[in-house]
Amino acid sequence: MLKEDYMKFALKLAESVNGQTSPNPPVGSVVVKEGRIIGMGAHLKAGERHAERIALDMAGSEAEGADVYVTLEPCSHYGKTPPCADYLIEKRVKRVFVATLDPNPLVAGKGIQKLKDAGIEVVTGICGQEAKQLYRPFFHFIQTKTPFVTIKTAVTADGKIATAAHDSKWITSEQSRQDVHLLRKNHDAILVGIHTVLHDNPLLTVRLPQGEKNPIRVILDTHLRIPNDANVITNKDSETIVVCGCNASEKKELDLIRLGVTVIRQKSQDVSIAELLQELGRRGIMTLLVEGGSEVNGSFLQEKAFQRLILYMAPKLIGGREALTSFSGKGVEKIADSLPLTFEKVEMVGPDVKITASVKE
Amino acid sequence: MLKEDYMKFALKLAESVNGQTSPNPPVGSVVVKEGRIIGMGAHLKAGERHAERIALDMAGSEAEGADVYVTLEPCSHYGKTPPCADYLIEKRVKRVFVATLDPNPLVAGKGIQKLKDAGIEVVTGICGQEAKQLYRPFFHFIQTKTPFVTIKTAVTADGKIATAAHDSKWITSEQSRQDVHLLRKNHDAILVGIHTVLHDNPLLTVRLPQGEKNPIRVILDTHLRIPNDANVITNKDSETIVVCGCNASEKKELDLIRLGVTVIRQKSQDVSIAELLQELGRRGIMTLLVEGGSEVNGSFLQEKAFQRLILYMAPKLIGGREALTSFSGKGVEKIADSLPLTFEKVEMVGPDVKITASVKE
Repeated sequence: MLKEDYMKFALKLAESVNGQTSPNPPVGSVVVKEGRIIGMGAHLKAGERHAERIALDMAGSEAEGADVYVTLEPCSHYGKTPPCADYLIEKRVKRVFVATLDPNPLVAGKGIQKLKDAGIEVVTGICGQEAKQLYRPFFHFIQTKTPFVTIKTAVTADGKIATAAHDSKWITSEQSRQDVHLLRKNHDAILVGIHTVLHDNPLLTVRLPQGEKNPIRVILDTHLRIPNDANVITNKDSETIVVCGCNASEKKELDLIRLGVTVIRQKSQDVSIAELLQELGRRGIMTLLVEGGSEVNGSFLQEKAFQRLILYMAPKLIGGREALTSFSGKGVEKIADSLPLTFEKVEMVGPDVKITASVKE
Repeated sequence: MLKEDYMKFALKLAESVNGQTSPNPPVGSVVVKEGRIIGMGAHLKAGERHAERIALDMAGSEAEGADVYVTLEPCSHYGKTPPCADYLIEKRVKRVFVATLDPNPLVAGKGIQKLKDAGIEVVTGICGQEAKQLYRPFFHFIQTKTPFVTIKTAVTADGKIATAAHDSKWITSEQSRQDVHLLRKNHDAILVGIHTVLHDNPLLTVRLPQGEKNPIRVILDTHLRIPNDANVITNKDSETIVVCGCNASEKKELDLIRLGVTVIRQKSQDVSIAELLQELGRRGIMTLLVEGGSEVNGSFLQEKAFQRLILYMAPKLIGGREALTSFSGKGVEKIADSLPLTFEKVEMVGPDVKITASVKE
């Protein structure tokens, strides 16, 4: 096996825990000696052992003189666990292969330096592009202190999310809707607008056969119009945050607090997406999935406040001058002023097409 | 090589002439003897030799005892050329492999029967699915006497064909626009609405480096509002047909006729798509490409008057409540009443996604 093969395997280990390690990134590690894998692991949960430590512990005394592959630069600081760089030195490994550096200012090259100072050979950038892709949300969060925002939308082949009569059940297939539950599972929080709550009364929970952790629910509700018996209020499988403008009813706010809901009252009359993202960042929410309707998506577009778009397109046409599209709002006047994306992945999910696009930076 | 390999090659020959044989179908043929290809050919143009004849002529006296692969059932009737079935018999070939039968009532199994009666072994259905796909437009035309209609549209990732201010230049990439010229080349006629003529003043010609035949231009113009100096009127690279309702100005009609334009005046006030398709069928137009705007596409959707959708999607977002989508019109009220499609092919064209979908029958 080549170095790249071991690193790809380490990335697979990391991907397997993507979405369950927040606020830590998903990391995988493989320990190799004389062409044999003698340890492997992934960081399972914040507060628990890091990937390198798990893999080194598995290798035991054999770790001495071994090669260690790790998808992200080993940490050099004391967090909830002691620094991995120190552990690699203590175990007297020979070489460390790192896919990508950690932009976290607490690490940022210091982990590598510590290893080098101890006489360990360090090679960085093996499968660097794949790793950067995996860590995009994490790097975004570290650098901006706001969540990495993905907008998910489901449209007909003529770009509609609902008919003129606002019917939207169901546009996409069972398979796509199942795929959305996997997407929810991989996010710390999920956001919808009050229209979606009033119209569809969703639970916004992850419904997968094996059961999964639920993301925090965030509802944009400028005037606090949410009914006390809405599913996102009465269902306690996850926390619910309702965001309102400064003029919303204080009585209603108290009602909601008594029902166990967190209310974020903003300083402005209208809800500011930028201010909200900063607040969610402060609460440690690294990844946010927006399942907004036309207007909520339009607001995120107008504020250029998202990084990724995941589009499910169903093989159906509904037509209609008044039908709703995925992004409304004011929109731009000129095509030249459009928000440029890159289509990263196009795949079939059952009968539907799924397109993953990133916003160009 | 297997039988399927020879037939796949014959299909390649047929595809190479797709779009240039109208009103005949594109056909390819390969003659094989003792594992060696001794003849090959494709029908190049209506009125000229059929594929089997070209391949057999190439084989010459070697054709006796050979295997002949042909993508469509050999004809058994006298058209502009004598029947191919007779020629196969005359050349004393041993076996004939046919991809698919010809639904043309003049052929429809009679060609096969003639060969069998002459003691030639006939095997049908080799690569039958691929052949049926290739001949869909032709079979549609034979069976309905109306053109096979493809709607082509180019949208942003949020499903818009123009901004609220009606700007649409350019949504898709240079590569996609080039691809559209190939699409035009493969069609007998191309249709737009009067709005497109008034707004964009297009030429609707095929612009490819090597030069190509141009499809007939069809303009839906209920009230004959087309300016006499529109590009589709003054440019003579192809014929232009203008379709109007019964109340359109007779003076304007005369103007247009004097400018060399064909005017189709319908019996009703509004243009009926169904009636138009029958008229185009009578004129021998087998394939029609609709590059309509929002409303024209909406009319074709409402009348379920098309068989295929080709969608180019650009990695751009423009938003806008009032922006135009690919299909407007009245639209359906319920998602359950949508027109079901099948996504047949999804591919990248430069930075854009191209989706080919067929309307479910």
